[in-house]
Amino acid sequence: MNDTISLLMNHRSIRKYSNQPVSEEQLRAVVAAGQMASTSSNVQAYSIIAVTSQEKKQRLAELAGNQAYIVECPVFLVWCADLFRLKKSTDALSADQETYEDSTENFIVATVDAALAAQNAAIAAESLGLGIVYIGGVRNAIAEFSEVLELPELVYPVFGMCLGYPDQKPGLRPRLPMEAVLHRDRYEREAVEEVKNYDRISSEYLSKRTQGKNNTPWSELMAKRLAEPVRLHMKDFLEGKGFMRR
Amino acid sequence: MNDTISLLMNHRSIRKYSNQPVSEEQLRAVVAAGQMASTSSNVQAYSIIAVTSQEKKQRLAELAGNQAYIVECPVFLVWCADLFRLKKSTDALSADQETYEDSTENFIVATVDAALAAQNAAIAAESLGLGIVYIGGVRNAIAEFSEVLELPELVYPVFGMCLGYPDQKPGLRPRLPMEAVLHRDRYEREAVEEVKNYDRISSEYLSKRTQGKNNTPWSELMAKRLAEPVRLHMKDFLEGKGFMRR
Repeated sequence: MNDTISLLMNHRSIRKYSNQPVSEEQLRAVVAAGQMASTSSNVQAYSIIAVTSQEKKQRLAELAGNQAYIVECPVFLVWCADLFRLKKSTDALSADQETYEDSTENFIVATVDAALAAQNAAIAAESLGLGIVYIGGVRNAIAEFSEVLELPELVYPVFGMCLGYPDQKPGLRPRLPMEAVLHRDRYEREAVEEVKNYDRISSEYLSKRTQGKNNTPWSELMAKRLAEPVRLHMKDFLEGKGFMRR
Repeated sequence: MNDTISLLMNHRSIRKYSNQPVSEEQLRAVVAAGQMASTSSNVQAYSIIAVTSQEKKQRLAELAGNQAYIVECPVFLVWCADLFRLKKSTDALSADQETYEDSTENFIVATVDAALAAQNAAIAAESLGLGIVYIGGVRNAIAEFSEVLELPELVYPVFGMCLGYPDQKPGLRPRLPMEAVLHRDRYEREAVEEVKNYDRISSEYLSKRTQGKNNTPWSELMAKRLAEPVRLHMKDFLEGKGFMRR
C-alpha cells in the first residue's frame, strides 16, 4: 500500500475542529486540486463558495441542521452544481438557438462535476493534515440557504464541507463487505448475506462508539431513514431554479 | 506540495492503454479505496460492475459511443447509483410503511455517493501507476446498456471508468482560472473576464494538442454543447427505473 492509498483508507469525517486557522495558501491548494478532477467534456459545471464570515456561517448552520462544527470550522465550503456560468458564457453565441441547460442530463453532469471536484479537494485537505466532513444539511432549507449565498438560477448547493484542523480522532467506520458493492460483468446479487454480515459488524462498531448505548444494525437504521419524508421540496426547488425541466 | 497533491495536480484522462493486465489485488485496492469515501448517512448507495469479459466490453462500447479504449482497457468499471440494495435490505423492516426511495433527494444522494466513491477509486488507481478515463457515454443508450448489465430497478449507470496501464501521456488540460469557480461568502460574479482569459488559454492548448488544426475557444465549444439535445431520454428513463418520481 502506498501513502496515497493509506490516506484514502484512513478517512474519517471530522466533527470537532481546533481554532487553528486554514491559510489562504492551503485553501487555494485544496481548490486547485479540486479543479484538476475529471469534468464531463470540460464543462466544469460547479462553483465553490468559501464561507469564512462568522456571522454567515452561523446563519447557514441554523439552516443546515444546527451542527456546531459548521460554525467552529474556520472555512465552510459550499459545493454548488453550476450551469449558470456556462449559460452566461455562451448566451451571446447562442442567440435564437434552443439550448438544453434545463435537461435532466445536464443536471446530472453538473451534480457529478461538483462531487468529483469536492472529493479531490477533500483528499488534498486530508493530505495537508486538515479534516473535513460533508454536510447534506445544506439541502434542508435549500431555498433560504441559497438566498443567503445569493445563488442565481441554475445553481444549487449540492453539499457543504467543513474544513479545518481536527480536534478529535474518531474510529474508522466499517463499510459494507466488498462483495455487496462489487459485481462482475453483470449485477450479480441482492447481497442479502453480505448485508446480514454487515449488520453484525456495524452493530458492534456503533456499540463501541456509543459505549454500549446504541447497537442498532445498519439495515434498521436504513429502514428508518428510507421511511423519513426527507427534503421532499427538492424536485420543486430544482425545477424552480431552472434544472431538470425535461 | 506533497506527493498526494502532486498526484492530484497531474491527472490526465487516459484514452490509450497497454495490454498489461490489472491484477485482482489492484482492482480490490482501488475498490476498497472507493468504499472509504464519504457517504451520505452511511447509505453507501452505489454499486460497481467490473467488466472484464471482452465480448461484454465490446457490446457496451457499441452502446456508449464506440470508443476503442473501452474495449482495450483490461477493466471497465461501471459506477451505478443504487437504491435497490437499500430497498431490498430494508423491505422486511418497512412492511405497511411508506418509503421514499423514489424522491429526488434520494436520487441526488445515490448519484453523489457513486461519484465520491469513484473519484477515490480514480486516485487510488493513479497512485498505483494506472490510468483512468470517465465515460459519460454509458448514458447514451442507457436502457440497452442497463439491460446488458442486468441492472434492476432503482439502479442506474452514472458513468463508466476505463482502468489500465497508460500507453500515452497527454498534456495537462488547463482549467478555468480559480477566480471563475471560487467565490467568497456569496456568489460574487458571473466570471465574464475570467472566461475571456480562459478562452485564450484553452484555445492555445487545443491548438497545440491538435497541431494547429483546432483552436476553438472554450465558450464556443460550450455553446455548441449546450445547443445539442443530448440524452433527453434521461428523465423518462430514470422515472421508469423508480427514481425521482417526487
